[in-house]
Amino acid sequence: MKAIIKSGRKPGVECVEIPRPAPKADEVLIEVKATAICGTDIHYWKWNDSAEAFANQYNVQFPFVLGHECAGIVTEIGAEVEGIAVGDHVAFETHIYCGRCYQCRTGNAHNCQNLAIYGTSCDGCFAEYATAPASVCFKLPDTVSFEEGALYEPGGVAMHAVQRADLRPGDTVLVFGCGAIGQMVTQIMLASGAGRVIAVDIDDYKVGMAREYGAIGVNSAKEDLGEVVKRYTAERGGVDVIVEVTGAPSVYETLFDYLRPEGHVVTVAHPGKPIPINVTRSINTKGATLRGVFGRRIWDTWYAFSGLVENKKIDLSKVITHRFPLSMCTEAFEQTGKGAGKILFIPELDK
Amino acid sequence: MKAIIKSGRKPGVECVEIPRPAPKADEVLIEVKATAICGTDIHYWKWNDSAEAFANQYNVQFPFVLGHECAGIVTEIGAEVEGIAVGDHVAFETHIYCGRCYQCRTGNAHNCQNLAIYGTSCDGCFAEYATAPASVCFKLPDTVSFEEGALYEPGGVAMHAVQRADLRPGDTVLVFGCGAIGQMVTQIMLASGAGRVIAVDIDDYKVGMAREYGAIGVNSAKEDLGEVVKRYTAERGGVDVIVEVTGAPSVYETLFDYLRPEGHVVTVAHPGKPIPINVTRSINTKGATLRGVFGRRIWDTWYAFSGLVENKKIDLSKVITHRFPLSMCTEAFEQTGKGAGKILFIPELDK
Amino acid sequence: MKAIIKSGRKPGVECVEIPRPAPKADEVLIEVKATAICGTDIHYWKWNDSAEAFANQYNVQFPFVLGHECAGIVTEIGAEVEGIAVGDHVAFETHIYCGRCYQCRTGNAHNCQNLAIYGTSCDGCFAEYATAPASVCFKLPDTVSFEEGALYEPGGVAMHAVQRADLRPGDTVLVFGCGAIGQMVTQIMLASGAGRVIAVDIDDYKVGMAREYGAIGVNSAKEDLGEVVKRYTAERGGVDVIVEVTGAPSVYETLFDYLRPEGHVVTVAHPGKPIPINVTRSINTKGATLRGVFGRRIWDTWYAFSGLVENKKIDLSKVITHRFPLSMCTEAFEQTGKGAGKILFIPELDK
Amino acid sequence: MKAIIKSGRKPGVECVEIPRPAPKADEVLIEVKATAICGTDIHYWKWNDSAEAFANQYNVQFPFVLGHECAGIVTEIGAEVEGIAVGDHVAFETHIYCGRCYQCRTGNAHNCQNLAIYGTSCDGCFAEYATAPASVCFKLPDTVSFEEGALYEPGGVAMHAVQRADLRPGDTVLVFGCGAIGQMVTQIMLASGAGRVIAVDIDDYKVGMAREYGAIGVNSAKEDLGEVVKRYTAERGGVDVIVEVTGAPSVYETLFDYLRPEGHVVTVAHPGKPIPINVTRSINTKGATLRGVFGRRIWDTWYAFSGLVENKKIDLSKVITHRFPLSMCTEAFEQTGKGAGKILFIPELDK
Repeated sequence: MKAIIKSGRKPGVECVEIPRPAPKADEVLIEVKATAICGTDIHYWKWNDSAEAFANQYNVQFPFVLGHECAGIVTEIGAEVEGIAVGDHVAFETHIYCGRCYQCRTGNAHNCQNLAIYGTSCDGCFAEYATAPASVCFKLPDTVSFEEGALYEPGGVAMHAVQRADLRPGDTVLVFGCGAIGQMVTQIMLASGAGRVIAVDIDDYKVGMAREYGAIGVNSAKEDLGEVVKRYTAERGGVDVIVEVTGAPSVYETLFDYLRPEGHVVTVAHPGKPIPINVTRSINTKGATLRGVFGRRIWDTWYAFSGLVENKKIDLSKVITHRFPLSMCTEAFEQTGKGAGKILFIPELDK
Repeated sequence: MKAIIKSGRKPGVECVEIPRPAPKADEVLIEVKATAICGTDIHYWKWNDSAEAFANQYNVQFPFVLGHECAGIVTEIGAEVEGIAVGDHVAFETHIYCGRCYQCRTGNAHNCQNLAIYGTSCDGCFAEYATAPASVCFKLPDTVSFEEGALYEPGGVAMHAVQRADLRPGDTVLVFGCGAIGQMVTQIMLASGAGRVIAVDIDDYKVGMAREYGAIGVNSAKEDLGEVVKRYTAERGGVDVIVEVTGAPSVYETLFDYLRPEGHVVTVAHPGKPIPINVTRSINTKGATLRGVFGRRIWDTWYAFSGLVENKKIDLSKVITHRFPLSMCTEAFEQTGKGAGKILFIPELDK
Repeated sequence: MKAIIKSGRKPGVECVEIPRPAPKADEVLIEVKATAICGTDIHYWKWNDSAEAFANQYNVQFPFVLGHECAGIVTEIGAEVEGIAVGDHVAFETHIYCGRCYQCRTGNAHNCQNLAIYGTSCDGCFAEYATAPASVCFKLPDTVSFEEGALYEPGGVAMHAVQRADLRPGDTVLVFGCGAIGQMVTQIMLASGAGRVIAVDIDDYKVGMAREYGAIGVNSAKEDLGEVVKRYTAERGGVDVIVEVTGAPSVYETLFDYLRPEGHVVTVAHPGKPIPINVTRSINTKGATLRGVFGRRIWDTWYAFSGLVENKKIDLSKVITHRFPLSMCTEAFEQTGKGAGKILFIPELDK
Repeated sequence: MKAIIKSGRKPGVECVEIPRPAPKADEVLIEVKATAICGTDIHYWKWNDSAEAFANQYNVQFPFVLGHECAGIVTEIGAEVEGIAVGDHVAFETHIYCGRCYQCRTGNAHNCQNLAIYGTSCDGCFAEYATAPASVCFKLPDTVSFEEGALYEPGGVAMHAVQRADLRPGDTVLVFGCGAIGQMVTQIMLASGAGRVIAVDIDDYKVGMAREYGAIGVNSAKEDLGEVVKRYTAERGGVDVIVEVTGAPSVYETLFDYLRPEGHVVTVAHPGKPIPINVTRSINTKGATLRGVFGRRIWDTWYAFSGLVENKKIDLSKVITHRFPLSMCTEAFEQTGKGAGKILFIPELDK
């Protein structure tokens, strides 16, 4: 079968022929119908410092099949698998959890102490077929398409951010970053009671997309963000909730200035260096709450996201901008630098 | 000025001429632009047992001006009033709180130990002009109409029910009762993340309205509600949230059967007699939560509701079905028994 | 080995010799060091309506070994068991959950849709040795005794009640019932921030015990409970939290009268018949919250309880009043009707 | 009467004779019975950068009477004051809130947009008599002493920190700083369900005090804190909750290393400069929550603290180490640099 692999600690990816894997006793095998490129995959493609650090942390072995956001049809199940059947449509959770540590036993399996990462610690899903432990399978509702299903994993990150934001009906939300995650955060916020979302980016194309799905789009390189925030939230002294999805250290320089006293900030993207935070002014006297997000709560985040997708409360078709066959993996990765929402591999396009 | 009054402990209402009131030092005077009939007003019109009990509890004095749901323009302020100016558009909170008891000092002023009720303990707002303590004034955003403003008070009850429902994105909600409050509960749920709302009534007209604003409408006298619930929630073992807005004892007979294990029920409407509840089965082994709603949390419920109205997340025009001048008060009250959403008095229509 | 069994649908229990069980692949075998009698066991001993209903609901097969509250040492593990070793000290969770249903996957495994009950759906732990699925094992800290460990399961019910009570530091709590669960609820409340606990019973012996562990003990058959509540909570209009652990329908007649506006009630014990509740007065206008408790949240309730026991924040030795060998099972069960806290079987006493 | 004043922007304080103030219409006059020195007062005494900044932010006018933590007896009330009577024992809230802004109307009056500070924006309470708005008076229970009452304000900060910590029964808490606030945080944590508190300081005297009131005291200059944390929390991967009460930037260098994945940090003390925080590692992948505390939630924090004091759940006598007459103000302030818990002025000692 075709698979996109990473053969070593160097830039680039390759589409190669490898044997179709067989599921172990506790695994399932799926025919991959749609699979999406994530930021981690891009780091691997470039093989930068983030790739090096992440790969080492999660015990990478070369070569390995890339990819961890996917949806497909179960074609075979291991001997001990219960509750999943051949023919089921499923998506995978990337965080392979041990199920026995304190975090796993108290509702935080996504931050398991013995975490393995699908598509890093083991082979992933940029391939025609893929195996995964049954414990990370989520059954997709019949009415959800494979393309939508491939976005459950990154969409779950967006949902997790919303769950931690203490959002109340009618609130005003500020989202920094209008890439795929930012888009989904914005759509989920608007579907979950936000009165308005101010979505910020420095790329006109992305800001334009934000406006299309209902946000107040602001290009902060051209417009005065402080002025916009003030226009909508003068009475409250700032926005109720901020979600940071850029990872840009410069965003933090003024981030807390836009927050009302006693507001909430959720950080999703990973800055490459420590951020100076004025704890006295921005956290303490502001009475602010700052929360980080790592992965997706298993499985309540998944069910919540699925409930919105299934009932057409959010529109993932707006998030997907490109589709490639596996064989065009280099072109697909190159597109990530040229402006794109989510880029999918559709193995069927290889046929 | 014209005012609709209740002159004694007997059925009926009258529209009479009385002097325009003057605000006390801590009060405001408003020109009433729109004011709505509530269930309590209907009890007063009929003068039934509920009217008797409620009037006695809150120290009614005859005659008094009926009405407590309204919006208008401030035309005069008392000497000590701060923060409100002539020309402001305002709505009133019905629960006149003392500000000094334990409940008032810990976020539950709506359930003040020394509660007085606007339009019962003092004159209300079914009139051309009305006074109220400045402490119960809520300033309306410029973009909100007076008709919408007149629905902030009942809408706040609906919002309060949603706030107590532990709603999570994608959840399935069951609302019993498609009258004005039920409609607003449904709209707010859909705007606040509910995947779907199953709205139940025994009146085809109301069920039809529910379908129009996005609910799965069910006439439980004609359709098998259990079947509908099962169709959408078999995996979870029932709906996540139930809101009871009928007050009908019969609804409670099967209510908990539709709830999934560990789900939440919010009761808004007042049954006229004690309800037998199987605590063992419906509460304990179900792990259920049952919460009552009385009035509106002051003022977070108001801000939340306002945020949705201001940003067009809910559509109150669908809730208002009739408008009358004050002078047609008898016709207006008679209409309540003939099928109606919210019925408004518009004093301008008297001119 | 010796085991206490139930041979059929009739009163009584027997201590018999049966073969020591062998663990299946996913099970552990323990040497039972201490095991406690629970209310369910008493129903089985009497074989009353509750026993009949519960046994049928959870697929009882005769004969079966009674008992589900225990602690012991792992002496053998099945081939697939991970994370538990021979020599570990463990207690068992009674609710054997499927791990795959919606409730199991969203933090409510205690209310699993495919629940089996240890000591009912399968053999239990009133024996010298007992097997159980590894998935229901909780490792005991070294500093916790086996007798304390045997109380983790019922103590978890008490902890669960506290977790659902919305307790805030300094609050006043009213606990109905001073049996073993009531005692543990009271002790946990006092250790978790309650300013005071008013513990109510109609048995002077139990009320006396409550006073010993720090409660304001009230014999409601002799003292005016309303007066006591008023003495401590006049400013708030009632107690902040009520926990119901008697199951007596008569308690519900006045229960809500003692609750302050916007307070919380948690019900633990199972009334044998439907309870008439004045929803209008007791739930709605009171703004009350009523929550049921079924089992223990897995595993956060266990960790929380363990943290208190391990650090000597609560004293379980006060809860245990009698110890018997397995062979004296009839005497032990007869003692339950004569006044007792928790009664333990200590298999070592048979030697 | 005697009063300790600050006459200008320079070091030092003076005890002078000034006229006894008279209450305005909305104020009360109290005879001060006990009043405590706070960190802000020390800044004023030294007149450092913090003093300059704080005084300017809150509109200081010279000369002014210092002090804001006190308890006393009401001796006179203004014409419009309701709910407070001559003879009442009261303490004052320092945050004088407007009551009309968004924060005031939604439960966050402590972070009012128009905040004035008692003892900065107006005269304070280091005097024989003091006036304050009735809106900031908290009536003390009869069983609470004036010395305890003088600690309600700083104790409320400690309580606020606990309220934001998401503490669960049995949790392990790490408190940095064993001064007066740190002591009260530790005592409240232990009274509110913490299994254990690890209290850290670099001063043996303070560490010793922490051990006395039940903490695991650690002198981090001499002991390996990481080792201690590991000893108690290896299974969870760190402590559940951290409270930072030192303001020392160096504490932040390793602070998050002690936190378990998905744990909570509350910051109370004000670092003098921005703190570099590794958002990627310490917040995001850790799934951490960081919350700031400013003042006290009005009034739920007060009631909660009072409930613990009144019921002897915490022991404030351990927190108070020195008492001075007003006339010995210089000696009192000098003591703050020589090792002390809370230092009180007792005006009666001047007689």
